[in-house]
Amino acid sequence: MTEDITQLSYALDTFYFLIAGVLVMWMAAGFAMLEAGLVRSKNTAEILTKNVVLFAISCTMYLLFSYHLMYSSGAGGFLPSLGFLLGGENSVDQVMGSNGDIYYSNRADFFFQVVFVATAMSIVSGAVAERMKLWAFLAFAVVMTGIIYPTSGYWTWGGGWLAELGYSDYAGSGIVHMAGAAAALAGVLVLGPRKGKYGKNGAIYAIPGANLPLATLGTFILWMGWFGFNGGSELMVSNIDSANNMAQVLVNTNAAAAGGVIAALILAKIWFRKADLTMALNGAIAGLVAITADPLSPTGLGATLIGAVGGLLVVVSIVALDKLKIDDPVGAISAHGVAGLWGVLVVPLTNASASFGAQIIGALAIFLWCFIASLIVWLIIKAAMGVRVSEEEEYEGVDLAECGLEAYPEFSVGKK
Amino acid sequence: MTEDITQLSYALDTFYFLIAGVLVMWMAAGFAMLEAGLVRSKNTAEILTKNVVLFAISCTMYLLFSYHLMYSSGAGGFLPSLGFLLGGENSVDQVMGSNGDIYYSNRADFFFQVVFVATAMSIVSGAVAERMKLWAFLAFAVVMTGIIYPTSGYWTWGGGWLAELGYSDYAGSGIVHMAGAAAALAGVLVLGPRKGKYGKNGAIYAIPGANLPLATLGTFILWMGWFGFNGGSELMVSNIDSANNMAQVLVNTNAAAAGGVIAALILAKIWFRKADLTMALNGAIAGLVAITADPLSPTGLGATLIGAVGGLLVVVSIVALDKLKIDDPVGAISAHGVAGLWGVLVVPLTNASASFGAQIIGALAIFLWCFIASLIVWLIIKAAMGVRVSEEEEYEGVDLAECGLEAYPEFSVGKK
Amino acid sequence: MTEDITQLSYALDTFYFLIAGVLVMWMAAGFAMLEAGLVRSKNTAEILTKNVVLFAISCTMYLLFSYHLMYSSGAGGFLPSLGFLLGGENSVDQVMGSNGDIYYSNRADFFFQVVFVATAMSIVSGAVAERMKLWAFLAFAVVMTGIIYPTSGYWTWGGGWLAELGYSDYAGSGIVHMAGAAAALAGVLVLGPRKGKYGKNGAIYAIPGANLPLATLGTFILWMGWFGFNGGSELMVSNIDSANNMAQVLVNTNAAAAGGVIAALILAKIWFRKADLTMALNGAIAGLVAITADPLSPTGLGATLIGAVGGLLVVVSIVALDKLKIDDPVGAISAHGVAGLWGVLVVPLTNASASFGAQIIGALAIFLWCFIASLIVWLIIKAAMGVRVSEEEEYEGVDLAECGLEAYPEFSVGKK
Repeated sequence: MTEDITQLSYALDTFYFLIAGVLVMWMAAGFAMLEAGLVRSKNTAEILTKNVVLFAISCTMYLLFSYHLMYSSGAGGFLPSLGFLLGGENSVDQVMGSNGDIYYSNRADFFFQVVFVATAMSIVSGAVAERMKLWAFLAFAVVMTGIIYPTSGYWTWGGGWLAELGYSDYAGSGIVHMAGAAAALAGVLVLGPRKGKYGKNGAIYAIPGANLPLATLGTFILWMGWFGFNGGSELMVSNIDSANNMAQVLVNTNAAAAGGVIAALILAKIWFRKADLTMALNGAIAGLVAITADPLSPTGLGATLIGAVGGLLVVVSIVALDKLKIDDPVGAISAHGVAGLWGVLVVPLTNASASFGAQIIGALAIFLWCFIASLIVWLIIKAAMGVRVSEEEEYEGVDLAECGLEAYPEFSVGKK
Repeated sequence: MTEDITQLSYALDTFYFLIAGVLVMWMAAGFAMLEAGLVRSKNTAEILTKNVVLFAISCTMYLLFSYHLMYSSGAGGFLPSLGFLLGGENSVDQVMGSNGDIYYSNRADFFFQVVFVATAMSIVSGAVAERMKLWAFLAFAVVMTGIIYPTSGYWTWGGGWLAELGYSDYAGSGIVHMAGAAAALAGVLVLGPRKGKYGKNGAIYAIPGANLPLATLGTFILWMGWFGFNGGSELMVSNIDSANNMAQVLVNTNAAAAGGVIAALILAKIWFRKADLTMALNGAIAGLVAITADPLSPTGLGATLIGAVGGLLVVVSIVALDKLKIDDPVGAISAHGVAGLWGVLVVPLTNASASFGAQIIGALAIFLWCFIASLIVWLIIKAAMGVRVSEEEEYEGVDLAECGLEAYPEFSVGKK
Repeated sequence: MTEDITQLSYALDTFYFLIAGVLVMWMAAGFAMLEAGLVRSKNTAEILTKNVVLFAISCTMYLLFSYHLMYSSGAGGFLPSLGFLLGGENSVDQVMGSNGDIYYSNRADFFFQVVFVATAMSIVSGAVAERMKLWAFLAFAVVMTGIIYPTSGYWTWGGGWLAELGYSDYAGSGIVHMAGAAAALAGVLVLGPRKGKYGKNGAIYAIPGANLPLATLGTFILWMGWFGFNGGSELMVSNIDSANNMAQVLVNTNAAAAGGVIAALILAKIWFRKADLTMALNGAIAGLVAITADPLSPTGLGATLIGAVGGLLVVVSIVALDKLKIDDPVGAISAHGVAGLWGVLVVPLTNASASFGAQIIGALAIFLWCFIASLIVWLIIKAAMGVRVSEEEEYEGVDLAECGLEAYPEFSVGKK
């Protein structure tokens, strides 16, 4: 009988993990639609290609290589150890607790983790949109998902030195979102801004996205998928406490997104005198990113406020990056980086087991590692094959140059 | 051991509730896509903004205020009682049965309910599309989700006087869908029709939606989300009877949607000589709305027929409302109001514990409350800030006037 | 206590089945978006109509008729037996094991199966796009989902002669995907190619799809839904072994799709010198189809390779079919037929309980039955009502001719 209960509990937790993973996989579609909606029509097919292929690369690299790197490198360490194919091994069946209890299928754990690395990589594609060479981006994806992300992932979720230090990041405001944003920032600095984005005397020209229904759909998909992202990070649902926790996590995740929308909309209305839809969408994402470092400890009201601050920060950051001529066509650095940092730093306010010191060290370590490692990789790729399309290709659109097709071949487009 | 089983059962029911809630949240994307597809391109960004922001407002109001109103106001009453933040309280963990058994996490119940109020509000946005001021709509959303919906919600699901009377409405054909449609009807009457919709001598001009793939996507999203909407309304899945019930509910929900599609398509083909896609989509929604009052009692065949009648009614109603010059750009009043009423009234045919008397009283009470309260609120908003954009703004499109951006800035559009 | 555990186990398996079914239902939206994105704008509303209505017809036929045909015709047989409404019967509650144990709700089994038949039918609509009469297609859908699919379904999953022979097809690479592709091929041969597709001297003209973001979205939806398609086909999750199996199935399903994307992209880059997005999308689908015959036995690496071969095959097949002037606008015959055949044949490499002999006989039997039966039905429909729109209607687009509306009425379209 106890055996039966153990089996059922194991089955429920495994099933829960898999469903959460399916929702996180769905976020790949969200990023694809968001980014496809926010770029110009002449660059849409290429960004779609990037999003589909980066997901495939992430999953394959993680299977072959980086799941082992991230999760089997021992406690407290700094350098991860090599190993292959752990995610694909049929022989590794079960994740066990320290008391010898078995909890859930290790394969389900792999499935849940593999879609996280794709999320981190998806953040990059938006920021470098409209001017980066496709194959340079794919080359970076191999290194990012094969080495950069799993290394800082090992430091934290893999049990490395940041975990020992007490860095607290429930579902990865820093580990996933700020990591992706740091890699994106490095890429944007190496690439430079799009032609026509910044003019003389500090002039900034808006380059509106071609398809806002797609961008809105993408945001709703991300919002939905985030319930798996955060809800699955409880890692277990099969007892009353875990179930209560998962429920609180979903309530708070939703509340933070709502707070982000409202705050960003109101700030945009006051500041720009317009109810700017793209700011509302970025507010939702910023709220989601901000709560991700701890969606469990705050009350619903607290989560709403944490999300709302994220929504304010994303609007301010988007404007500030433009002043600095850091050209991020979809606002990914602001929504995932700035709001991610805010999420990491605010954890100790509601979670007594976290400390500001550990959060600051963790945020710094993740940012610096991902930024510097990415910068080096981007520069190597630039030297080896170039990262930027030619001026003419940028003018004509990267779709024709890179993919040989157009996203909307029949629709007449106006002056861009 | 018994304790372990209780824990597992609690965990399964909580998980089930949360997944159902995730599916219902997804319906917000469905409404957004449906409405964005059925309006003209010049009004698309604004309807997207409305849909994102109304969801955020609904969730925040329900958290702060209206969950308490709806579910903690005592048995059999008429006036709900005030209270705050119930949904955000960590201390309220468990929903208990009358025998002291605990069932599932109260936070999961909140999550499931909070996405329902957003559904009711989403119905309104489509009907008032293309001519209403954005901020007037958002002000209405605050009152609708803060007071109007939770009050009739209290009367029924909250245990108030309609519940005592025996009004039967499983997942809310009346409580959610007709309620939303009643608020929408009041708004449409206050607003008046779009310029150019009705001409002299009873002429009615079709104003086609700009993007039918989006509208189709929205319908499929709603169809999918409805499995959570109805499936979650069983409230429990952890024993054989509940599991069988949930399965029957999903079979019937799907069958009713299918019946609605087929009936609406055939009627449109016979009546208009064309296989009208928008009618097929509205047929699906009408079938779903119609079965929502009781997706459990009918057989699969019965559900197909209930949905098919819904599909016929929605076509007739759309034509009839146009004759009455009640301009509902997306057909929301027909699909949610008329089919919702049909759903409520047909319950006693298959469910012996329901009575026609209680259903009629319930439908009347919900409709009158929501319609009259909404009418008063719309009129107050009209007096305070106006509800309708200027004629010039309507001609130019509300996107530029309200949001300062365009949904499809690059695509050349023809004469509208 | 044992009773409680049985109840919980039954509940978990039923819930699992229903969630898997919801994900498979979602694939209907995936096919709709994929096909709507890959046809020209003038034929978009009609393909959307087909996709919505074929889903409704499939569900209704299966409820009324074909679920009985497929699953209640006795062991080892060839001819299925008639029977009605099994799926809608409230009295048939439980699926029992051979030892008298009850497993899960029969209604949940019906729900899971009913969405499979719609998948098979969805495959057909893409291949015959842009020139088939709507009502001819719908007539075919009635026969395909009422007789053709459930007959070979009876031979295999229903326990008929192919099941006895040892044909092994976990989630239906052959039973669903190749079956749909065979019906599609018959339809395409009866219809002939689109006007302007093939010119003199073997010239082949590309007819690009009008909306690649939609096609990409559709692919992501299919990818997501496939986790239900394959994951639900384990039929049970409530013990450690089943849970491990479901997890492995999801890992492998995802890995195969990733392998398909990468292989198809690289082959397209080498062959056509372009990173062709539509080939990457078809690579994903081909990878998914290929792994579907056995997503359990391979390791993750094996699944990646099986998917990658699928991705290569789909590119080669699309080119080859064009040489043969078999005009399949969306590549459905290649992605579902060729990759499905590959999936069926490769099973014995990793699954010792399967044999090449049984796989070859099974694949032949399913293909021949579906192809010949479909061909006869298409020819009858051609004689009775015609299958192809007039040349003028094809030139103007089937949207106006069949549906009386346009998918994108406001967007100016260029020369097509």
